[in-house]
Amino acid sequence: MQATIVTIGDEILIGQIVDSNSSYIAKALDKIGIATYEMLSISDDKEHILSTFQKLQNKVNVVIITGGLGPTKDDITKKTFCEYFNDTLIEDKNVLNHVKEIIEGFYKRPITQLNRDQALVPSKAKVLFNKMGTAPGMWVEHENTIFVSLPGVPYEMKYLIDNEVIPNLMQKFERPFIVHQTIMTYGRGESLLAEQIEDWENNLPSFIKLAYLPSPGRVRLRLTARGIDEKTLRDAVRIQIEKLTPIIQDVIVGFEEDDSIEVVLGRKLAEKGLTIATAESCTGGKIGQMLAAISGASAYYKGSLVTYATQSKIDVLNVLKDTIEKHSVVSEEVALEMVQNVKQIMHSDYAIATTGNAGPLKGDSDADIGVVYIAIATLNEVFVERFEFGQPREKVIDRAVNKAFEMMYKEILKK
Amino acid sequence: MQATIVTIGDEILIGQIVDSNSSYIAKALDKIGIATYEMLSISDDKEHILSTFQKLQNKVNVVIITGGLGPTKDDITKKTFCEYFNDTLIEDKNVLNHVKEIIEGFYKRPITQLNRDQALVPSKAKVLFNKMGTAPGMWVEHENTIFVSLPGVPYEMKYLIDNEVIPNLMQKFERPFIVHQTIMTYGRGESLLAEQIEDWENNLPSFIKLAYLPSPGRVRLRLTARGIDEKTLRDAVRIQIEKLTPIIQDVIVGFEEDDSIEVVLGRKLAEKGLTIATAESCTGGKIGQMLAAISGASAYYKGSLVTYATQSKIDVLNVLKDTIEKHSVVSEEVALEMVQNVKQIMHSDYAIATTGNAGPLKGDSDADIGVVYIAIATLNEVFVERFEFGQPREKVIDRAVNKAFEMMYKEILKK
Repeated sequence: MQATIVTIGDEILIGQIVDSNSSYIAKALDKIGIATYEMLSISDDKEHILSTFQKLQNKVNVVIITGGLGPTKDDITKKTFCEYFNDTLIEDKNVLNHVKEIIEGFYKRPITQLNRDQALVPSKAKVLFNKMGTAPGMWVEHENTIFVSLPGVPYEMKYLIDNEVIPNLMQKFERPFIVHQTIMTYGRGESLLAEQIEDWENNLPSFIKLAYLPSPGRVRLRLTARGIDEKTLRDAVRIQIEKLTPIIQDVIVGFEEDDSIEVVLGRKLAEKGLTIATAESCTGGKIGQMLAAISGASAYYKGSLVTYATQSKIDVLNVLKDTIEKHSVVSEEVALEMVQNVKQIMHSDYAIATTGNAGPLKGDSDADIGVVYIAIATLNEVFVERFEFGQPREKVIDRAVNKAFEMMYKEILKK
Repeated sequence: MQATIVTIGDEILIGQIVDSNSSYIAKALDKIGIATYEMLSISDDKEHILSTFQKLQNKVNVVIITGGLGPTKDDITKKTFCEYFNDTLIEDKNVLNHVKEIIEGFYKRPITQLNRDQALVPSKAKVLFNKMGTAPGMWVEHENTIFVSLPGVPYEMKYLIDNEVIPNLMQKFERPFIVHQTIMTYGRGESLLAEQIEDWENNLPSFIKLAYLPSPGRVRLRLTARGIDEKTLRDAVRIQIEKLTPIIQDVIVGFEEDDSIEVVLGRKLAEKGLTIATAESCTGGKIGQMLAAISGASAYYKGSLVTYATQSKIDVLNVLKDTIEKHSVVSEEVALEMVQNVKQIMHSDYAIATTGNAGPLKGDSDADIGVVYIAIATLNEVFVERFEFGQPREKVIDRAVNKAFEMMYKEILKK
């Protein structure tokens, strides 16, 4: 069972937007045992779309296409579907009523011809009803390949994948099982890690594949097992994890199927009924924002005091002017005051504080560019660490955010 | 001049990470007049890589490949390069010295064999020296196609694109000019906009292409002109903009080549010497974080008070308990107090406040899921608007963030 994911749109090919749809679709397919063979981004050009369909026809079981379904002239997927499948457009009553409801009910204006055209679908297509927007999805089976066309707006695409495409594919195909297990490690580089586990890696059974997923400050090791019987696969993966654990015990921080560190951290806090707040300078609120992005965050996330300007650290976080003058605003001492004070102000159990110089220019401090202090407050102690994250700016911010989550995660595991 | 961008890595095909490298590369190529014909993501599999190279050979001028260059066993791009170009690996002295400096100097440990192997490069390749990491880039010219291989770590890739790949391509090829002009519109849907400008669109000269880029709350219209003479293109685009402007004057908020609204907003604030702060609840700090992500933000961004918990709104933002009890925490009145108080606490000229219910569950308020109040404080007034952003959570947060930037931008333009 193989799929290819095709994204249509010039805005992707000129780099104006990043395609995150393909990743969402690939993950959903992977969960039901359908492997993504390739992802493709192509232009809004009829000939390009047609030649792509021809190349994929009977080569993969499923082609999932996003984009090019809007109401405007540059959206040509629907017409190209008709040409490729030798079909004509017909009006779908359900879709038309739905478009009317949205435009007349929500936007309070009569529908235009362009709105009405959204209800046109190829006669051979099964319509995938889009509750989230006006453009329906389409499902056409042609020879040995299913072509599915979805709108490019992310939440519309996600709704259709979850509620239409995946259930239909599960009904249509028998699929192999795929088991993923990710081991999260922190604080050791990819190559050193690889040497340590070389023997173990060489002795993995052939149906289990290992991948290294490095990012600033951490490496995730991902095991993927593929086969017929779910229990056999899960047992085999478990045995390998048991062999691996003693070798790199000191850097393993957790085992996850999917989740990012802030999700795991949030889950642990919620389980234990504990809360967290942040005081951020160079990270600009990103730590708090990542915590807040998780559904259910209000159970454990109190908020963030983002004191970007030096004066705000004094006004909002009650950092002593004297401390800043003596040690500079990027210092161990300021980070410690920030973390202690935010914990108190926000009445949280844990707190994180960051102060540093993300660059590219020096700010209100003489600290070197790339230097960041991260302070942690736990139930009964505070501590701080100094880091040199180099450049560029985005790397400094990302590494500081990751490091802060790592430091906090280790503390919460101890509790 | 056409390029294809190839990303290698199973982690992309299973949806574990989003490929943002291709977008960065496409934008850089576009700026120097090289069009990206396709983007491809393929697996860490030798046969898959080889067949992809064969398909692209002599079909495009340049193939830019990212990923698969790390030190571990699943990184096979380098070996595959050798096989495809019938080449062998040789040790590059410069790269070896650089690897030694990083590992021995920065990580304070002796280099391992895996580190040493990073200095091996195909003998036919021009080495693209990677200041940001241990894996060098490679440039091989084969028949009518240039193959460029870059590491997948984003800041290493970006460094090599900016400092090696683009300068080399500019020297190598004469390229057409490409002029982009984006018109940012707010508050009118794609289809209504399209009907309004239909006549204008139908009369565009053939060398100018129009694209609609809709996102929650806004539509960007992008004009792309391609040709030999830069001045002719710029003049033609300017004439079209002059024709378009009177038709949709009421929804145009700006003209930009590239920049997102927060960048434009930041630039305007910096020009005028004015500052901004935010008080955020349901947006969780995202507005502040987007402001802080911009280099130079310290000139105008004071910080954010992210009062996610109701009690924090009282403790930190001095919202009156009485106001919350009378009107609920998601209300016009609370949003107005938040914005007034944050402006005062942070000593800023402008301020934004958000309070709402992002869902999926109801929180500390009876407000419907998806309801968000956004308040704005300008130099001498405050006002608030109520929005219904529906669901899911991420859409509510994104639309609220965009709407807040839009409201603020309109105020700053008036100044």
